Amino acid sequence: MPNSTVHTPEARLIEQGNPLEDSRAFRRSLGQYPTGVSVITAQHGEKRVGMAANSFAAVSLDPALVLWSIRCESSSAATFMEASHFAVSVLAADQVEVSQLFGSGHEERFNLVPWTAGAGGAPLIDGAIAHFQCRLVKIYEGGDHWILLGQVEHYARFSGEPLLFAQGQYAVTQNHPQLSQSQAVSNTQSADDDMLFTSLLSNTSQHLSQLFQAHREELGVTRATSRLLNLLSAGSVALDGIESETLLGRGAIEDALNGLISQGYVQANAGEYALTASGLEKRQALVARATEFTHEQLAGIPESDIAAAKRVLQKLLAN
Amino acid sequence: MPNSTVHTPEARLIEQGNPLEDSRAFRRSLGQYPTGVSVITAQHGEKRVGMAANSFAAVSLDPALVLWSIRCESSSAATFMEASHFAVSVLAADQVEVSQLFGSGHEERFNLVPWTAGAGGAPLIDGAIAHFQCRLVKIYEGGDHWILLGQVEHYARFSGEPLLFAQGQYAVTQNHPQLSQSQAVSNTQSADDDMLFTSLLSNTSQHLSQLFQAHREELGVTRATSRLLNLLSAGSVALDGIESETLLGRGAIEDALNGLISQGYVQANAGEYALTASGLEKRQALVARATEFTHEQLAGIPESDIAAAKRVLQKLLAN
Repeated sequence: MPNSTVHTPEARLIEQGNPLEDSRAFRRSLGQYPTGVSVITAQHGEKRVGMAANSFAAVSLDPALVLWSIRCESSSAATFMEASHFAVSVLAADQVEVSQLFGSGHEERFNLVPWTAGAGGAPLIDGAIAHFQCRLVKIYEGGDHWILLGQVEHYARFSGEPLLFAQGQYAVTQNHPQLSQSQAVSNTQSADDDMLFTSLLSNTSQHLSQLFQAHREELGVTRATSRLLNLLSAGSVALDGIESETLLGRGAIEDALNGLISQGYVQANAGEYALTASGLEKRQALVARATEFTHEQLAGIPESDIAAAKRVLQKLLAN
Repeated sequence: MPNSTVHTPEARLIEQGNPLEDSRAFRRSLGQYPTGVSVITAQHGEKRVGMAANSFAAVSLDPALVLWSIRCESSSAATFMEASHFAVSVLAADQVEVSQLFGSGHEERFNLVPWTAGAGGAPLIDGAIAHFQCRLVKIYEGGDHWILLGQVEHYARFSGEPLLFAQGQYAVTQNHPQLSQSQAVSNTQSADDDMLFTSLLSNTSQHLSQLFQAHREELGVTRATSRLLNLLSAGSVALDGIESETLLGRGAIEDALNGLISQGYVQANAGEYALTASGLEKRQALVARATEFTHEQLAGIPESDIAAAKRVLQKLLAN
């Protein structure tokens, strides 16, 4: 524990206000809190329902309770509230497609994704990193949502990394940068240069990615905007395609599209989105700036060293 | 959207059961669902309370509602339930120390961490990436916890990356590996080798980290166990030190310590934990295996290329 005041950097205010005056901005603020992705399912009579949710939360250990919430207007709400049980599957990092299928309510989702019936017939998604079979014990009012409490009758934990949803995009976890430092220090005993090579690789990768992001912010371009400009520069794309290619959530895509359209960079045509001439120019300018930035980063390093580094990385990646 | 069945890899079952028979195992399963870290505070009369929580969840847009839960036995519960408001601060990636101070209930936390009073006097933590000022509108029963619902009167969003808590450890986000592929494809137009270098760096880093983890799993060592063995090999450490050096949560540390002690690798003495002789041997064996593994990965690459790659990475890291 620190003895002096904890260092706090300047966090730059982006937007603020009353949620009722700008619900999209409020949603963006809520999106700052990262979550996993759970698929929650139930079976009642002939009806089988399932959706992706990031409102899952642990509540109590004894009794073992968890909660999640569902829009009152959801067509699945009635079935979830009538079923005796619901099942929670915590998605693994490689289950983005499962999340998208259950996020969109795709009609064939239960035929496309392998699952096993749990308590009350509620489907447990194969390949998830945790399963919770829950008896529905309480339904609370939560504004435009119902809050469902389940008593966990059976848990299961599997190997694997979690899928994340953070700041409007799918992501995965990586070790905290502070850790590499402390573990590198404790590794000096082994004085192992090769161990340090992999740690150097991960630190450099994190560092460059932070520099890039700061640079993009200076240019006034968000991650979502930059991804959309990149994607659309290859041709027009429909919303489904944007979702699977950019790994952004619907909210982030809509925000970015609205911004790009109002700036005249993107136009919509028969359900597809395409760059305008000035959108293409903007994208080319950004690529040029990024290239310039990379050149600055690599300045002073001999070409032969860069070529050797690429050979090493490619070899490692091919293993 | 895929037209065929979504590919699902084999996830290996680690443990399962009835939560009431093994609450620690149940907690580990709950820990598979990654979350952000929020600090929730309130002020009532002279009493100021604050704690780190990962039960925060968005509930409703109209009305704007969020929830979180607090142990009924918590000494802060009464103040939170009497106060008119609570404040939620979503911590940034560089606020691990803030999380640890508020997680441990450190007496001086409000003197060590800069904050600003929000609605009802509830402290908003400086440097957070989002603030929610909430009027307490409802308290629901949730087993051994109370579920507190707040109506958000004011939101604020700041620049920065979120802090994560996932699988018992602090972590940060990184781009999903599927994204690098699709964005690399759309970047071919720029045919920019230097752009591809940074993408290559990040892909290689992710790939190696996955290989390392698979390797560690084969050796039957968890991430937490491996970190503890590394840390304690440098000397004995108290629980606070373990927490700040390993970036593991209390639950994960206790689980790992219990395992190591029962295997005879660690002994506790006057509040400090130290490796036994066989613990030191075990750690040395693991380091040897890791070194061997790294040599295998680097096999066939000329020494001069590896040296050049290190120069490039060190230069980039120094920028």
